[in-house]
Amino acid sequence: MRKVAIIGVGLTKFGELWDVSFRQMIVEAGARAIEDAGIDGKQIDAMYVGNMSAGQFIHQEHIASLIVDHAGLLPIPCTRVEAACASGGLALRQAFIAVASGIHDIVVAAGIEKMTDILAEQTTEALATAADQEWEAFVGSTFPGIYALMARRHMHEYGTTEEQMAMVAVKNHHNACFNPCAQYHMEVTIEDVLKSALVASPLKLLDCSPITDGAACAILVPAEKARRYTDTPILIAGTGQASDAISLHDRQTLTGLRATVEAVRAAYKMAGVEARDVDLAEVHDCFTIAEIMAIEDLGFCKKGEGGKITEQGETALGGRIPINTSGGLKGKGHPVGATGIAQAVEIAQQLSGEAGKRQVEGAQIGLTHNVGGSGGTAVVHIFKRGD
Amino acid sequence: MRKVAIIGVGLTKFGELWDVSFRQMIVEAGARAIEDAGIDGKQIDAMYVGNMSAGQFIHQEHIASLIVDHAGLLPIPCTRVEAACASGGLALRQAFIAVASGIHDIVVAAGIEKMTDILAEQTTEALATAADQEWEAFVGSTFPGIYALMARRHMHEYGTTEEQMAMVAVKNHHNACFNPCAQYHMEVTIEDVLKSALVASPLKLLDCSPITDGAACAILVPAEKARRYTDTPILIAGTGQASDAISLHDRQTLTGLRATVEAVRAAYKMAGVEARDVDLAEVHDCFTIAEIMAIEDLGFCKKGEGGKITEQGETALGGRIPINTSGGLKGKGHPVGATGIAQAVEIAQQLSGEAGKRQVEGAQIGLTHNVGGSGGTAVVHIFKRGD
Repeated sequence: MRKVAIIGVGLTKFGELWDVSFRQMIVEAGARAIEDAGIDGKQIDAMYVGNMSAGQFIHQEHIASLIVDHAGLLPIPCTRVEAACASGGLALRQAFIAVASGIHDIVVAAGIEKMTDILAEQTTEALATAADQEWEAFVGSTFPGIYALMARRHMHEYGTTEEQMAMVAVKNHHNACFNPCAQYHMEVTIEDVLKSALVASPLKLLDCSPITDGAACAILVPAEKARRYTDTPILIAGTGQASDAISLHDRQTLTGLRATVEAVRAAYKMAGVEARDVDLAEVHDCFTIAEIMAIEDLGFCKKGEGGKITEQGETALGGRIPINTSGGLKGKGHPVGATGIAQAVEIAQQLSGEAGKRQVEGAQIGLTHNVGGSGGTAVVHIFKRGD
Repeated sequence: MRKVAIIGVGLTKFGELWDVSFRQMIVEAGARAIEDAGIDGKQIDAMYVGNMSAGQFIHQEHIASLIVDHAGLLPIPCTRVEAACASGGLALRQAFIAVASGIHDIVVAAGIEKMTDILAEQTTEALATAADQEWEAFVGSTFPGIYALMARRHMHEYGTTEEQMAMVAVKNHHNACFNPCAQYHMEVTIEDVLKSALVASPLKLLDCSPITDGAACAILVPAEKARRYTDTPILIAGTGQASDAISLHDRQTLTGLRATVEAVRAAYKMAGVEARDVDLAEVHDCFTIAEIMAIEDLGFCKKGEGGKITEQGETALGGRIPINTSGGLKGKGHPVGATGIAQAVEIAQQLSGEAGKRQVEGAQIGLTHNVGGSGGTAVVHIFKRGD
């Protein structure tokens, strides 16, 4: 397998983009990535795009063809991949494998979701199709309810508190204030979170990530050729993907995600690093409890101590292991199919020293963690600053 | 890149399977492939699954997680890929790339669609999401109408006749009679086709492929290890994928598919063969005119002569280049996401000499051709019988 590096990244503004269409968004993100990489579109050999459900959100399947056409990239192959909210991470992984295999040289990994063109209740119903239709959605479960079950059990087993969960939201909203592309530039306090409307006890509105439109792109090339295009190539040193039962009742535990544990084990092994080597991470904080479980499952602390290290500030900017410097899904926004690529964009900018006011000084190794549904799929990537 | 071979294949019965669920179908096809390969499920490293729109057909996204769970394969990675009716072909290509890269050894390429659990008009509407929503579906176009435009232009430019199109249906229904898994075991005559209900002039009901439930699997390994598992490994010698404008009005021509021409060029180049070397092919006959255009675009005859060589019997069993010995989409059925894999199943069985009464004697090289929508995506694979 060839080594693979990122040479350029691009992001649209994240938010409720009522005046921007699906096709405009992907072209905008792609154009920024091409400009960042300093290449010509004609040099691109193939594209992978992560998207959860354009079929339900904008009534359009077969988006890969639509995207390469509107991006002016015909007739290159374009492949859509989907694993609910992990779709972007999967697109990055497939692009990585394609370059590593030698079948393509310059490959775009993209992610996109246009979620606000339908009514909010329709969006919630569409998102619920990422859960088991016969065992979960059938009885009325939606994602806040499913993650609330995990939160309750985590509180019961480890003494995690609602205040600790709120601190995840406070931190990520703070970080988002330094990210020009974030959906929210709005600080929140612990009290704001605790007093926000109850969605599914113990989760309040400000424990939940929002509904977001957005697109993200990263351009991958063989590492040996990366220096032709940039002085700061970002090596994709490890990739791991794993599956678990789609429905909660079939899982081994409610207080962590087996798919995360398996995926990060594979990624650490491939990259030849351990959790302690990682300087910063973008993790899948679709709900505040999800970040707490993630930092445990990824090995940044012992199981059950995710709430505690959040409270102690270890995951804040300037802390031991800064988590979600971009603002995360919570503050930056969560256009589901775009999120996995947007995480890689943040890590690439951080390792290149281009993260502005949210820069983690001297960062050499970063990690992304992208989850589908309630944990049926997880994908982890590890990035190293090129020497 | 490592060479890649198929060591086992499996297919469900195709048809209106009202007593079989989505999850049962994929397990059935997978179990048959595993049995055919003579491996244990525990040996499988990863899975790719082609599916057009479980989101619309059974209101379930994130099917990759559901499938590996129900197949007893947790926690291996599973990735859904989608390009409308070319989803299966894309799954085969991604599985090929994964094995070729060295990241995985034993990989399942699967395809599945459960189309009959909703009303027929809902199915037609769901299928129309593979066309451009803003330029085609918006004005009421569905696929019979879109292919009818291509048929009319082909008739105008090349003198192709409705009788020649009908002969595609007659041939493919005949072939399907020898395929135990086919949806139809029913001969039709040219008169039957010409007298069947008009759907979108000049296409009649029997010019159209049906709505079908079904699943298909193929198991891929590095070619150098294939002999451990089977005496008749089938080498995947070439793969090609290409894109074109999703909507007809942006295409260079109406009488052929640029995506097919580009995809087969890449596949022939990789395999080191030409059209004349191919012994048989499974092509994407979603409508009879589509088979006529495909055999031209793939190089089996000159542009415009597809109708003529069909009339002359060159594409029949025993003819110069047998096309759709399985019965094709027309006779075997067209569970959209499964079709690309089912095509590979047929070629693998033919090259292994296991195709029973539809066997093409001495077949050494086979080709599959899978199209998404009206030609926004095409993927071609070339297979060789292992020496």
